[in-house]
Amino acid sequence: MFFSETDLIAGIASRAKYPSSIVKGIGDDTAVLKSADPDKYQLFTQDSIVLNQHFFLKDDPQAIGWKAYARNVSDIAAMGGIPSCALVALGLPKSLDEGWVTRLYDGIFSCADTFSCPVVGGDITAVENELFVSVSMIGVVSKQKLCLRNGAKPGNMVCVTGLLGGSIRSKHLNFMPRLREAQWLVNNVHITSMIDLSDGLAKDLFHIGEASSVGFELNKSEIPISSDAVALAAETGKAPIWHALNDGEDFELLFTVADNESDIKSVCTEFQELFGFRCSVVGRVIDQGEGAFIVDEKNRRGQLFPGGFDHFA
Amino acid sequence: MFFSETDLIAGIASRAKYPSSIVKGIGDDTAVLKSADPDKYQLFTQDSIVLNQHFFLKDDPQAIGWKAYARNVSDIAAMGGIPSCALVALGLPKSLDEGWVTRLYDGIFSCADTFSCPVVGGDITAVENELFVSVSMIGVVSKQKLCLRNGAKPGNMVCVTGLLGGSIRSKHLNFMPRLREAQWLVNNVHITSMIDLSDGLAKDLFHIGEASSVGFELNKSEIPISSDAVALAAETGKAPIWHALNDGEDFELLFTVADNESDIKSVCTEFQELFGFRCSVVGRVIDQGEGAFIVDEKNRRGQLFPGGFDHFA
Repeated sequence: MFFSETDLIAGIASRAKYPSSIVKGIGDDTAVLKSADPDKYQLFTQDSIVLNQHFFLKDDPQAIGWKAYARNVSDIAAMGGIPSCALVALGLPKSLDEGWVTRLYDGIFSCADTFSCPVVGGDITAVENELFVSVSMIGVVSKQKLCLRNGAKPGNMVCVTGLLGGSIRSKHLNFMPRLREAQWLVNNVHITSMIDLSDGLAKDLFHIGEASSVGFELNKSEIPISSDAVALAAETGKAPIWHALNDGEDFELLFTVADNESDIKSVCTEFQELFGFRCSVVGRVIDQGEGAFIVDEKNRRGQLFPGGFDHFA
Repeated sequence: MFFSETDLIAGIASRAKYPSSIVKGIGDDTAVLKSADPDKYQLFTQDSIVLNQHFFLKDDPQAIGWKAYARNVSDIAAMGGIPSCALVALGLPKSLDEGWVTRLYDGIFSCADTFSCPVVGGDITAVENELFVSVSMIGVVSKQKLCLRNGAKPGNMVCVTGLLGGSIRSKHLNFMPRLREAQWLVNNVHITSMIDLSDGLAKDLFHIGEASSVGFELNKSEIPISSDAVALAAETGKAPIWHALNDGEDFELLFTVADNESDIKSVCTEFQELFGFRCSVVGRVIDQGEGAFIVDEKNRRGQLFPGGFDHFA
């Protein structure tokens, strides 16, 4: 592509004009809109998946439908919100049979039922080959629980749910959006920023860093590495930690908290007992001028950048 | 395609489960949702356009952007509503240059500004070839002004704005959604059903007919035929009336009114003076059991069906 998506989005954002009814436009997991209810905001998001980019024809169509819908639930969860309803736009090749499409909808309706977020409409368009599923979703959030990307402050702890990396092996198609978990977290810790992990820990951390004008220091030994990251590393020759930092589509929650370290660690213990998987403190927020680092067990610092890190020195 | 879109949508609609917060789900121009404001409903719609289906690469990208956005404005207008904000999801081939994409956004922002409906987010995905633009839009409607497809009653007059047919010659890319006009109409006549003309007069009339369980009798001499329909007929060998009835993408308003014929005809005169183009009474609603007909100047009746009509006999 002759243009970068980041530059393009920055260009688009600079052209957008917002009335006072728009609390947050381009630049977060969802748009945030004023509501007629003075205690709440409305959330509005759209996300598309495309054949050979986000899924393949060999994949189970039910899982493809789940994924398309669940990505949007994950975005709303990461704002501290609850999804309300959604529209599904399909671009369907003429070569598909009806059974395939029915199974795609099985996945969509399964996700809609799981999160009590009904499909209220959409449209179907014929395409030649490049199947796409574009879902738009509305949600709601208490004003006091809204989590944006721009509230991280130096001294905050950095936390992440679950185990990271290697989602291409299967999790990217059947992940569980962290809606219950996000709701519990906004009620039990002081979240200052939150994002769902779609681009990978390193990149998404920089999304928070840019929005909040802060830097980061991650502890290498605390990064929760999935067994899929380990298995994938055996194939790629990269380190498991590389996959945990850089693989996309984990759909876990990455967030910063203003609580002190002992409080957040006990919350993480409670989280594990309640939900049956990890919540980890992986580092802390530092001044933007200090940059972004990852520190290993021997206290060596490697520079962190979106998409990777330098060797420890 | 091995499945029909109509059957597929009927199948999907039958599977959808709605809580009481959903006033209208699948099956109208937009979904209708309860709002925290007791006097209003929220509208929610999504519509996609795809390369070689709805536009071509030779078309002006600014017009493509306008079209993608304006289709959604047209849907909200046809519900009696006003658009609030929208998201834009793009599938962009790597071969496009940045200038092309900037001009696409010029068209999108131009439409957003024209209708005071800002772009509040979206996403960009790389595709191989099949460029798509999928826009989702939120709007608002006064409960008393909501226009669904299901309220037409025998005895109602059938009306349409503008001139019909031949939009493929240019109008499909640069049409003006009838937002101001729809707002004026809901305040000046008793609309019982309304739809925007996207599939063509004959098909869209049947959408109202099915939703309202009614039939129709159209007056052939009253169907407003565009000069594009006449020009296109000269190429295709079909009659201009055929194009006016069956061509898609007019994006005019088709509606039924409970007002008497003389009242609605004086409203049509006022409409013409105010907006500078026609509003026509083209027929009347009859019992579903009577069927759907078109009547010519010699009072001969031809059977009307979605996508055509029989010879007059």
